[in-house]
Amino acid sequence: MTKLGTFYGIGVGPGDPELLTVKAINAIKAVDVIIAPKTEKKEGSVALSIARSHIRPSTEIIYQVFPMVKDFSERTEEFEDNKAEILSILRSGRSAAFLTIGDPMFYSTYIYIFRLLKAEGVEVVTIPGVPAFLAIASQLGRPLAFGNEIVSIIPATAPRGSIEAALGSCDAAVLMKVYKNFDEIVDALERQGKLDEAVLVSRGGLPDEKIIDDLAAHRGERLNYLSTIITK
Amino acid sequence: MTKLGTFYGIGVGPGDPELLTVKAINAIKAVDVIIAPKTEKKEGSVALSIARSHIRPSTEIIYQVFPMVKDFSERTEEFEDNKAEILSILRSGRSAAFLTIGDPMFYSTYIYIFRLLKAEGVEVVTIPGVPAFLAIASQLGRPLAFGNEIVSIIPATAPRGSIEAALGSCDAAVLMKVYKNFDEIVDALERQGKLDEAVLVSRGGLPDEKIIDDLAAHRGERLNYLSTIITK
Repeated sequence: MTKLGTFYGIGVGPGDPELLTVKAINAIKAVDVIIAPKTEKKEGSVALSIARSHIRPSTEIIYQVFPMVKDFSERTEEFEDNKAEILSILRSGRSAAFLTIGDPMFYSTYIYIFRLLKAEGVEVVTIPGVPAFLAIASQLGRPLAFGNEIVSIIPATAPRGSIEAALGSCDAAVLMKVYKNFDEIVDALERQGKLDEAVLVSRGGLPDEKIIDDLAAHRGERLNYLSTIITK
Repeated sequence: MTKLGTFYGIGVGPGDPELLTVKAINAIKAVDVIIAPKTEKKEGSVALSIARSHIRPSTEIIYQVFPMVKDFSERTEEFEDNKAEILSILRSGRSAAFLTIGDPMFYSTYIYIFRLLKAEGVEVVTIPGVPAFLAIASQLGRPLAFGNEIVSIIPATAPRGSIEAALGSCDAAVLMKVYKNFDEIVDALERQGKLDEAVLVSRGGLPDEKIIDDLAAHRGERLNYLSTIITK
């Protein structure tokens, strides 16, 4: 029987290809197949474009569409199909790497597929990456936390009460995935007295990056999915 | 007049030299002087040892001792002396890079020196790095956050009430700098029902790494400064 290939989860960092780690580059060069995730059929894969220059011409690239899910109880057909496709690659003895923006263990679709493949006894190696919020802090020259300060990392899609409680018990906050409910988040920041010091970065490190520091003036706008607010 | 040299803050990641980014390596190779911080005179610099293999033999290395401070109101003589030393390098037209474990804008001594130098009109470039808590999540195969989950990042040195409030308003927690008050943290996790799922990693990625998943059994022990607990 052919030995099952290894599955890699690779964090490619926030957008700038120079923020890939040596470990990520070595794995990207070594694997047989690259899995490039995308959220919709028509879109390209942002993670793939970040890693592109390091992929050997002979490496097979497979695009997989992953729907957004709220938690692991949502078992969708797409995930099962993607899992089956990855398993058939690994069963042929080939290795495969799943690319993920930022860090794989931090709000990534990778976590879902990681769990499914672990349950099948697959050997998985996960390589961490620089998360977007830290790249934003460096780029803006805004230290995120020092000394005894507490940081809350809050998906803007969380229930309103949870968002308010987390905002109220931290010194600095990172709000991830700020898009459809931007206005609600602006309101919550205002109530917590944290609006003036908040900055939003959309598609940080990518060519169409946008930085907004007067959030209130942008109420009503629809933002990109890759939008993060940091406040301190 | 000689043009002031650029000051770089470089995140070298959590410990594994392969977790340096391409950007960090390029900057380490390009600068004239490397500032290697250490917390005590007798110790070596962990950040320097991580970056070592990328430093050119001709690059000058300067060790600077930084005392631990709680906040920016603590103006110590050591910080002023270190600032003066860096300024004299930059004023001679040479560039200097300050190495920092993990990420520079995330609980690093770098933030203090960054503020002092910014106030002097120095041009500063900060390069983000992989923080220890994300490397731990990948290494242990423990996803940190998915979907709507909220993460609190809590220095174990924060006031007890703040720690409890933050633990109570998150789904996953990262406790940083767990050392002298380890027992108190174990008690707080127990009260919040988060002790069973907690794992401590000390000096992760370094040769003398330690992983502890039965925290209660280690009460009374004194841990290394580079100890992090993740829980979910």
